[in-house]
Amino acid sequence: MHIGLVGLGKMGGNMRTRMRNAGLTVIGFDRDPELSDVDSLEELVEQLPASPKVVWVMVPHGEPTHSTIQRLSELLGPGDVVVDGGNSRWTDDEVHAALLAKKGIGYVDCGVSGGVWGLENGYALMAGGSAEDVAKVQPAFDALRPDAENGFVHAGSVGAGHFSKMVHNGIEYAMMQAYAEGYELLSKVDMVENVTEVLNSWRVGTVVRSWLLDLLVKALQEDPGLSEIRGYAEDSGEGRWTVEAAIANAVPAPTIAASLFARFVSRQDESPAMQAVAAMRRQFGGHAVRAARESPEVPPAGE
Amino acid sequence: MHIGLVGLGKMGGNMRTRMRNAGLTVIGFDRDPELSDVDSLEELVEQLPASPKVVWVMVPHGEPTHSTIQRLSELLGPGDVVVDGGNSRWTDDEVHAALLAKKGIGYVDCGVSGGVWGLENGYALMAGGSAEDVAKVQPAFDALRPDAENGFVHAGSVGAGHFSKMVHNGIEYAMMQAYAEGYELLSKVDMVENVTEVLNSWRVGTVVRSWLLDLLVKALQEDPGLSEIRGYAEDSGEGRWTVEAAIANAVPAPTIAASLFARFVSRQDESPAMQAVAAMRRQFGGHAVRAARESPEVPPAGE
Repeated sequence: MHIGLVGLGKMGGNMRTRMRNAGLTVIGFDRDPELSDVDSLEELVEQLPASPKVVWVMVPHGEPTHSTIQRLSELLGPGDVVVDGGNSRWTDDEVHAALLAKKGIGYVDCGVSGGVWGLENGYALMAGGSAEDVAKVQPAFDALRPDAENGFVHAGSVGAGHFSKMVHNGIEYAMMQAYAEGYELLSKVDMVENVTEVLNSWRVGTVVRSWLLDLLVKALQEDPGLSEIRGYAEDSGEGRWTVEAAIANAVPAPTIAASLFARFVSRQDESPAMQAVAAMRRQFGGHAVRAARESPEVPPAGE
Repeated sequence: MHIGLVGLGKMGGNMRTRMRNAGLTVIGFDRDPELSDVDSLEELVEQLPASPKVVWVMVPHGEPTHSTIQRLSELLGPGDVVVDGGNSRWTDDEVHAALLAKKGIGYVDCGVSGGVWGLENGYALMAGGSAEDVAKVQPAFDALRPDAENGFVHAGSVGAGHFSKMVHNGIEYAMMQAYAEGYELLSKVDMVENVTEVLNSWRVGTVVRSWLLDLLVKALQEDPGLSEIRGYAEDSGEGRWTVEAAIANAVPAPTIAASLFARFVSRQDESPAMQAVAAMRRQFGGHAVRAARESPEVPPAGE
């Protein structure tokens, strides 16, 4: 099988390698000429043998993905298929499928999990689209997945792939927060003398054993006490979208929402909400407040 | 090694089998004569060869554990050791250690994870106590743990074993809730056509792969849609204690607390809090309320 691959960054570059190792002919395009096999998207499409041409898009979500698919809708033709393997919001998939359908081009959205470990271990893939379109991409899925039995699902119609991957990430947020809360609690009590060893002992035979636990133990073994890491966590969008999807579908998602909000708190240098709490405590109870950061102490009202 | 084992229920019975399979001589006592090797706690202690006598207590936490340890403090002597392998609150450990110390008897608390899978796969063990006391029990730990490398930790001083196991269970609550929220969200949208297959595909190569995910998939494969199970979840105490410990140590634990409260909600036939919310909405906005269960519809105020 020949396949076009647009975007050869951390993820796309490794995926090109894994597909080539599996015997596929991959024509890669990236804006960075050092990484690119061809000079332009036009050249990529030209070099693919005729129908069906399959082009896998692996660029940042939002405008970069949208403009790439827009351009591909002008270059491809009936029977061809575009795959969006990036982290797009599931609501973009309908838009892109409709845009391509006008030209008779098929569309498959694919959530991809695996990160830097994917090249060696394979990627977990969640695809959305028609059975006909998914079948045209199947050799690429089979090259990328961990093995013939695992790590691929045709989740449903257009959007189902990105939706499933988004929910996966929302669950991931809450799981990470759960381990993190347990880690902090173990670290706070004197009687527990070796927190890393406690977590390490959980890796076999317990209910909480998981790959995330393995990673947390690895981090703690490399840097006991995590003294080199600040408690600051970005989010890449999928956690927010999961909570938005929960709201849109009236699904209670307290742990996923709490884990997202914990990340927001971690990014604040000052909390306006807790300033307000402190101000109200002073107003009604004369409770002391801490001075604003980098300003002298404010005496409590009533003293 | 000889060891006395008090409590031969689901957990204790399997642990006796696993220790015997490893070559230990286990003298078991249970109130149920069908399960018991001896007629009384006195006979159990008598049959153990002299010092150090090691007695492992595996009965429900609270009064059953307390009265068993109380009785053992009268039967054992200096240099002997009592192990509490049940799900005791970590605050009970200090009390029991002090009670036994008066007679020169050592004490080790041990959190045990493994459930019904432990007999075959081994139990994960978290022990608290002095190095000297732990050493006297080590052959039993080695028989019960999954293998020589894994699944055992001497977590710290008295209480550290039960505290670690408690935090393990608190994390477990939040992880279960995280998967559960994701499952509900996937089930709510039409485009995802096979929720079980999506979750199954996550078992290899994803960030959220874990033993709990394996169990959820197994449950869904046996009963797609979980139509045979009511959404009602008890708790065995450790989730509450984790939140209490978080409060005592001022550790933010939003996902663990949320998962505990979600279980409480699941057990209510009616929610007084949401009755109050509905009542206030009617008072200030004339919003319609649903009639109380098994009573006629209440007309909205203002109509």
